[in-house]
Amino acid sequence: MTRPVLLDCDPGIDDMIAILTAVASPEVELVGVTTVGGNVGIDTTTRNALDVLALAGRADIPVARGADRPYLRTLDNRAESVHGGNGLGGVTLPTSGAGPVEATALELMVETVRAATEPVTLVATGPLTNVAHLFAVYPEVASRLARLVVMGGSIGAGNRTPAAEFNIWADPEAAYRVLTEPGLPRPVPTTLVGLDVTYRTAYRPDDLDRLRSAGTVAALCADALEYYLAAYRRDIGMDVVPLHDPLVMAEAIRPGLVTAEPAYVEVDTTVGPSRGNTLVDLRGVRNQPTAEVGVDVDVPSALEFITSRLENYARR
Amino acid sequence: MTRPVLLDCDPGIDDMIAILTAVASPEVELVGVTTVGGNVGIDTTTRNALDVLALAGRADIPVARGADRPYLRTLDNRAESVHGGNGLGGVTLPTSGAGPVEATALELMVETVRAATEPVTLVATGPLTNVAHLFAVYPEVASRLARLVVMGGSIGAGNRTPAAEFNIWADPEAAYRVLTEPGLPRPVPTTLVGLDVTYRTAYRPDDLDRLRSAGTVAALCADALEYYLAAYRRDIGMDVVPLHDPLVMAEAIRPGLVTAEPAYVEVDTTVGPSRGNTLVDLRGVRNQPTAEVGVDVDVPSALEFITSRLENYARR
Amino acid sequence: MTRPVLLDCDPGIDDMIAILTAVASPEVELVGVTTVGGNVGIDTTTRNALDVLALAGRADIPVARGADRPYLRTLDNRAESVHGGNGLGGVTLPTSGAGPVEATALELMVETVRAATEPVTLVATGPLTNVAHLFAVYPEVASRLARLVVMGGSIGAGNRTPAAEFNIWADPEAAYRVLTEPGLPRPVPTTLVGLDVTYRTAYRPDDLDRLRSAGTVAALCADALEYYLAAYRRDIGMDVVPLHDPLVMAEAIRPGLVTAEPAYVEVDTTVGPSRGNTLVDLRGVRNQPTAEVGVDVDVPSALEFITSRLENYARR
Amino acid sequence: MTRPVLLDCDPGIDDMIAILTAVASPEVELVGVTTVGGNVGIDTTTRNALDVLALAGRADIPVARGADRPYLRTLDNRAESVHGGNGLGGVTLPTSGAGPVEATALELMVETVRAATEPVTLVATGPLTNVAHLFAVYPEVASRLARLVVMGGSIGAGNRTPAAEFNIWADPEAAYRVLTEPGLPRPVPTTLVGLDVTYRTAYRPDDLDRLRSAGTVAALCADALEYYLAAYRRDIGMDVVPLHDPLVMAEAIRPGLVTAEPAYVEVDTTVGPSRGNTLVDLRGVRNQPTAEVGVDVDVPSALEFITSRLENYARR
Ligand SMILES: [Ca+2]
Ligand SMILES: [Ca+2]
Ligand SMILES: [Ca+2]
Ligand SMILES: [Ca+2]
Repeated sequence: MTRPVLLDCDPGIDDMIAILTAVASPEVELVGVTTVGGNVGIDTTTRNALDVLALAGRADIPVARGADRPYLRTLDNRAESVHGGNGLGGVTLPTSGAGPVEATALELMVETVRAATEPVTLVATGPLTNVAHLFAVYPEVASRLARLVVMGGSIGAGNRTPAAEFNIWADPEAAYRVLTEPGLPRPVPTTLVGLDVTYRTAYRPDDLDRLRSAGTVAALCADALEYYLAAYRRDIGMDVVPLHDPLVMAEAIRPGLVTAEPAYVEVDTTVGPSRGNTLVDLRGVRNQPTAEVGVDVDVPSALEFITSRLENYARR
Repeated sequence: MTRPVLLDCDPGIDDMIAILTAVASPEVELVGVTTVGGNVGIDTTTRNALDVLALAGRADIPVARGADRPYLRTLDNRAESVHGGNGLGGVTLPTSGAGPVEATALELMVETVRAATEPVTLVATGPLTNVAHLFAVYPEVASRLARLVVMGGSIGAGNRTPAAEFNIWADPEAAYRVLTEPGLPRPVPTTLVGLDVTYRTAYRPDDLDRLRSAGTVAALCADALEYYLAAYRRDIGMDVVPLHDPLVMAEAIRPGLVTAEPAYVEVDTTVGPSRGNTLVDLRGVRNQPTAEVGVDVDVPSALEFITSRLENYARR
Repeated sequence: MTRPVLLDCDPGIDDMIAILTAVASPEVELVGVTTVGGNVGIDTTTRNALDVLALAGRADIPVARGADRPYLRTLDNRAESVHGGNGLGGVTLPTSGAGPVEATALELMVETVRAATEPVTLVATGPLTNVAHLFAVYPEVASRLARLVVMGGSIGAGNRTPAAEFNIWADPEAAYRVLTEPGLPRPVPTTLVGLDVTYRTAYRPDDLDRLRSAGTVAALCADALEYYLAAYRRDIGMDVVPLHDPLVMAEAIRPGLVTAEPAYVEVDTTVGPSRGNTLVDLRGVRNQPTAEVGVDVDVPSALEFITSRLENYARR
Repeated sequence: MTRPVLLDCDPGIDDMIAILTAVASPEVELVGVTTVGGNVGIDTTTRNALDVLALAGRADIPVARGADRPYLRTLDNRAESVHGGNGLGGVTLPTSGAGPVEATALELMVETVRAATEPVTLVATGPLTNVAHLFAVYPEVASRLARLVVMGGSIGAGNRTPAAEFNIWADPEAAYRVLTEPGLPRPVPTTLVGLDVTYRTAYRPDDLDRLRSAGTVAALCADALEYYLAAYRRDIGMDVVPLHDPLVMAEAIRPGLVTAEPAYVEVDTTVGPSRGNTLVDLRGVRNQPTAEVGVDVDVPSALEFITSRLENYARR
């Protein structure tokens, strides 16, 4: 029996691969995609989500447009140099004939959760603005989620600043509202998968070669990741390309790929050098754990999982 | 022709009088009431809103329940000692047979604005949580408001802390989102009416005597204000009772009762002694004005306006 | 019997008049002047202090150079447009042959307090950096002060920002250390005289005429104040020139000119819009009073006091 | 030729071993010890410093009492449960007949640096309050230091909070003043040695056995460390005892034991969950490096260095 999954994302190269991984996985049904401004603006992330679904042959999955500005404060939070002008590493997808549904991201989330016959897993691979709106305006609906799996934060260093990972940094107040003060009637089982494990789940250049020989869809992924890889090489001298969002989706599809420990997570919302830091108190001395935080990952299994799902498109 | 008015409130004694003033004013039509936790909890403010409308003979006006926790951070933000356990100074109203509508406060706001044949004036006399949700989730809808009139803040001293007025202090992040970073497609004409003018718009004890002889509804108001007056006497030695929320409603009904000047308003969201302060830059040296801020009021006219409207109930 | 007075200042036009007022007052003996960066840099304020003392015929009073940067954070905290390039409104004083003593401002404060046969009154008319150093490094010495009289802050609006008065804004952490967390063995009787009373203690243009006819020193003061007046006219449309620092010195010389009330004072050190605000809790509900805060002033007496002292120079 | 070393500390077990290491090292001359409140109060840290020097046979080295409260804000910053009531793990040292010099810590620092015939190395193994005073009041003197070596901070997790190491947490504003805004005429070569390397420089239980058989002084160290080890076992399940302060002193004596990289260091002074965090930007993308930050250590060499110096006492 397939589990319903909702994806809130800001595609984005690795969001694209997360979408493709979900669609190609029989364990889950991707029941909707909501978009948020993040790596690039909301118009682009929405367009990209539609085009990626069309590429996957699932233009029927509803896409709803969400927030284009952070929950509280506006910052210059674009990351176009890493993701290319269209957010997809310069790869041009065929344009989907479909448009977003009329419902807002928040409305689609609410309708989907209410309509689902079993609890929905919400996967978030962008800034948490839409999810914060859900928690704030519809706490009872949020309480009915089966699970929330978030790509964000880190126990150690950040990537956007020395302290902060990009998704959390782009909207720290939303992350605070969701992770530190969820304020729901019932707690939602939450897994936070951060840079500590996503950076390790990385393709080497020859992994891209394998993708390139696995059909059109996988080859497009390889092209986009190649762009990403070049940015990593140029900016921080890495010669591998991490699969941040795909790993998080993989964990949502096959729980346990990431090893997580219960911890209290406090998101730093100060306007200072630690803005957007996720303080993870693994020992939970001070507060009760509020989430499971990824501390380890079976890297070969995770990479194989993602690659083989992308290869599925060649068999269709 | 009557103008449509939506009231977002946390009744509360002076919210009660604001509601009664609106219902008794032919210039406007009160098209909906949304509630927010503030002076007392959301269950009580919603119950009170329903009962006040029944008292006014308008149980048909829809009441929608809104947020019970602040936009970002939870604080102990109740003021029961001033407003009495039920928020109405111990006055017990007949219980309305009506309940709140199924829609949330946010949904009722959106539906009302969309359905209205002319632009709606939104009056806010509680913490701005619901209004912040409207601005954040439905910026296009918020942009269609005719006017936003807010009871909140002060140019000078606060009442909840040396720096902060209660409504803003109770949810500074919501106030920041609405007043400092509205982020709407089109600016909404906004008037901020703070303690500088509301404190001056105060009944003396003999004004209460006039109310007492003006029918059941006015007499109930007098009883509730008597309770309020006692609290003011006890806590800060004042022998008059300010009509914070009624003045703001009066200004919404008859624009110009309050003299306002354009100013940039920055809400302090730091976690420090100035949390909830509204910094009003009247000269607007640094930033373009974002609101009209009340600096003066024609006190006798304002009091007469409110009193005479409450007296209308005796003539029904 | 004369009381010893130490002045910590950043001349500055009104510091100049404060110095001249002190020297011309038989009730006190100005036993030393320490300088701080503020209106202009430390080199200029030190040079000005020396030159003003020479003008007053008291080049023998020791001047010690103090801090040129704030207690904690460096900001662009110069106010040259108001005070003129040399801080004295373009008035050029005869250059004193004297230089500063070798001791630092902190050392001179400590030596002076220790050597004095009766408790010293410390008057501060600039940012509180040096005073914070005294409180932090020599708490026992600070405890022996007879009184600390500070020009700074305001109960109402600021002048440097909507929230903050210049001296406090220029070094909020120093002010916090001195006023909010003094941490001394014994409390020092402290009077904070802010804009609420200093703005009212203002010369009208014809007051400057009286000064001009009262000898060289007073005429120089008139010239400098004329410059100041022009800045006030230009910037905020005022047609009077406030005597901030001279009033504070006058209060130190003749205690009671300013009416003060006990209050707890919390200096805002957040990095936000209220940075440098002085939160004055006159009712002291939350905390024990830590200072006397000026709330009123006998304006005619204060102006007459200052003017007549400046006229004393003509009689020498 | 011996290099002069000044130690600013809060003994404390590991400060004690740092002192003993310095005295037993022919490469340096310990020319003074200044104390600061930290692990325990200033009276105790001063008493302990005197007693440790007497134990080392060097009661002649001057000890000066420094700050007992942080640079800006007072917090409950004692760590008595880790260090025992007297800060030395319950080990009772013979009481030294000597007392502290009359000079304050700041005065002793200034005199020592001025009097030295070659540049002084300042080692700081407690909160940085005294050092901040030196930088703030005597920037020219601070500029003449040969080197500043600090035990504090971490690139990764903290020990006092998830974000902050104890010494920095105990006085973040002092650390900010010294590390982030030194404001000196000439930069002082600064090495920050944090938990990333000090935690790895740890004795195992059998290392304590070796100490126990190496004379009275080393045996006393073993006894004190045993107490410390028990605390680590109890609190965080570690079965080794790190030599935080001794490693920092060892690096000062034999530069290069710690591998350090240039980095910009920003101390978090917000009042939030990251207070006291040291943000180390190793790549220095945003700002010029301001310090060398320890990233690695030759653990066996470091442990052998410290142990062999403590064994020197048996040979005297
Ligand atoms: Ca993403
Ligand atoms: Ca209200
Ligand atoms: Ca001044
Ligand atoms: Ca130590």
